[in-house]
Amino acid sequence: MLGLAVWSRDEEPMAKKTTRGKAAGAESALRKEKARLDRKTVTKITEAADKVHSKISRGQKPEMHFPVRSLSNVRYDKRKGYFEIGRSKKSRTLTVNTVRTFAQTLRMMALSKELVETDDFATKRDAYYQSKNWTDAAFRDQAESDTVMDDIEALFSVEGLSREQLRFVPDEHGGAVAGRLVVHDPDYETGRVHRIDCSQFGSGAYSIPSMVEHLSFETKARFVLAIETGGMFQRLQSHRFWQKANCILVSMAGVPTRATRRFIRKLSDECSIPVYAFVDCDPYGISNIYRTLKVGSGNAAHLSRFFCVPGARFLGVTPQDIVDYELPTHPLKDVDVKRAKDALANDPFFQSSKLWAAALRQLLEMGVRAEQQALAKWGLNYVIDEYLPRKLKAVKHFLP
Amino acid sequence: MLGLAVWSRDEEPMAKKTTRGKAAGAESALRKEKARLDRKTVTKITEAADKVHSKISRGQKPEMHFPVRSLSNVRYDKRKGYFEIGRSKKSRTLTVNTVRTFAQTLRMMALSKELVETDDFATKRDAYYQSKNWTDAAFRDQAESDTVMDDIEALFSVEGLSREQLRFVPDEHGGAVAGRLVVHDPDYETGRVHRIDCSQFGSGAYSIPSMVEHLSFETKARFVLAIETGGMFQRLQSHRFWQKANCILVSMAGVPTRATRRFIRKLSDECSIPVYAFVDCDPYGISNIYRTLKVGSGNAAHLSRFFCVPGARFLGVTPQDIVDYELPTHPLKDVDVKRAKDALANDPFFQSSKLWAAALRQLLEMGVRAEQQALAKWGLNYVIDEYLPRKLKAVKHFLP
Repeated sequence: MLGLAVWSRDEEPMAKKTTRGKAAGAESALRKEKARLDRKTVTKITEAADKVHSKISRGQKPEMHFPVRSLSNVRYDKRKGYFEIGRSKKSRTLTVNTVRTFAQTLRMMALSKELVETDDFATKRDAYYQSKNWTDAAFRDQAESDTVMDDIEALFSVEGLSREQLRFVPDEHGGAVAGRLVVHDPDYETGRVHRIDCSQFGSGAYSIPSMVEHLSFETKARFVLAIETGGMFQRLQSHRFWQKANCILVSMAGVPTRATRRFIRKLSDECSIPVYAFVDCDPYGISNIYRTLKVGSGNAAHLSRFFCVPGARFLGVTPQDIVDYELPTHPLKDVDVKRAKDALANDPFFQSSKLWAAALRQLLEMGVRAEQQALAKWGLNYVIDEYLPRKLKAVKHFLP
Repeated sequence: MLGLAVWSRDEEPMAKKTTRGKAAGAESALRKEKARLDRKTVTKITEAADKVHSKISRGQKPEMHFPVRSLSNVRYDKRKGYFEIGRSKKSRTLTVNTVRTFAQTLRMMALSKELVETDDFATKRDAYYQSKNWTDAAFRDQAESDTVMDDIEALFSVEGLSREQLRFVPDEHGGAVAGRLVVHDPDYETGRVHRIDCSQFGSGAYSIPSMVEHLSFETKARFVLAIETGGMFQRLQSHRFWQKANCILVSMAGVPTRATRRFIRKLSDECSIPVYAFVDCDPYGISNIYRTLKVGSGNAAHLSRFFCVPGARFLGVTPQDIVDYELPTHPLKDVDVKRAKDALANDPFFQSSKLWAAALRQLLEMGVRAEQQALAKWGLNYVIDEYLPRKLKAVKHFLP
């Protein structure tokens, strides 16, 4: 019934091994894998709790060590293709001052164990409200509760377990999908597999659920197009661009949610399909949306290995497109300039690519930005009839 | 291919006349109706332009009259059940000072005519960028362009034409739907009707398109549950609450978008299903989300007749629920208090209902608010096992 994180023994999604179009047969394997990983999760939680317990039994102060979550504790290896969390750890020793947080951490781990055992899940908000029954260990506000959850997530990510495996799911809305794709969604209770054909939604679309690990795919599409705005998605969907171009359209609606990123990653891995990003040409579209999609984000580097799409490439809108297509522009705002300069000075991803560094410098020199819908200057469907086909003929020129 | 506003001769959605579960046969009627309304739209635009033209030909100053869009020009009639735009008009006479806006208004109307004739659509942003080719009539910024579009929309709403009929569609993301509902989405190009079964998406959902007029429905559900947060929607969807309760779940994700409101309204009208709102107990949930869903909003009263759901009722969370279910609360913020007091002092909807006025005063006296997920204090699935079933046994006690 629920979406479940399923990593194989080598901590990579097992379904990677299924071949394109043959995903349907993988459900019983997925089921076994889910059971194995649920056992692993419960074991890891129990082990962590046992350590604390035995220290206390011996009259010693128990402590826990959490990876530090910040840009300063991030590594970027081009070959791996995503931000990795570094080795810095922070310790939490049980003292008079830390007793509440310590207790909360253990209760939150107990909640996770219970969720795995009852095959349920909780959002950050659910977890916060659950704590209201923990008497003195109740969280005072959601920020407190979120920090503890993030720490636990980082702790177990070292063991190859994602937050979804701990059964903590995002509150946020998933992206929309349309095109040449069939999604298989198994119901573990009834054993039935829903077969969802994303070319059969008319003018509507398939809305990605909060958890996607249990999904598998069937597709012959040539590529996935990840689109920034709902407006552009609706245009390409209504004019069935996915039919002409034999592709899958995904609406990210801004910075893609975790579920949307993981969905694209799984789809790309399991079906060996390239992913092209189509976003606004501004530091937000490039450094927040595209960078997060491709390599992850700084304060959540412990997630990147699961949630980013290292193979993604940048179709547009590029700074050079502004020149080539004479696009209407807006001046860069102060926040844009700051964001672009930050990316050049501090972001390991942009620093690792001469092409990207040059593109960002070009944008700063021009002093302007352009939205993807600016192509409408040449006609509402210029993007379908001219821009995208022309771009797709020269994929090797896409920014990395 | 596209979603098309279809109102019948008496300016109400024609499909109202189809009976529950028999919507499938209505497509050819819808098609004729679409053609009739497209002709009407083109005629109305041409008439408005002709008036301007003939004035100029006679050497007179042309002028146009637009309904004033503000809370001060709103009427609320309980029997009609939605905010109506009043009679105040503002005039735009062609002078040296207004020449740009005047020209832009005419060009925007011409764009609308072209969109109807080519069976296409434009978002606000598309329209703005299109203007970049209008030489001196180009919009300087999007605010300028949005105002002109809103004026045109208000102008033609008097003729019973919605913005969607003018082919201007929202940029925003639609809501998600799951449960006992089959959506029919006809493709006018191929004549094929997509049959979208919202009970077959596993853990995923159906994402509502930007335009919904062309859709029709097939359902035996007892009610529609319109839910504020994505997290609560995912819980009810994953646990198949819609199966147990025989209902349709709609995720509004905050204040519902136009497309989401129109979708719920059509569904409710055409299938005679009641709509229950399930939102946070705070002035935002009550006065922004629920009030907008039910009767519309002040600065867009020209839309209410098409976009609100006058029959909607308030399941919860009510101020009394905070007491009855001993929910964890947060103190009301200043903005909450201001919002509640504003609603009591100035909002025709809350003023027309003693029950609502009492509920808002109770909330102000308690000085606290509660989120719908606060029910998780009693267990993550307390909402499914206890709260909703208990509430649904006493529908007649729902706030109006």
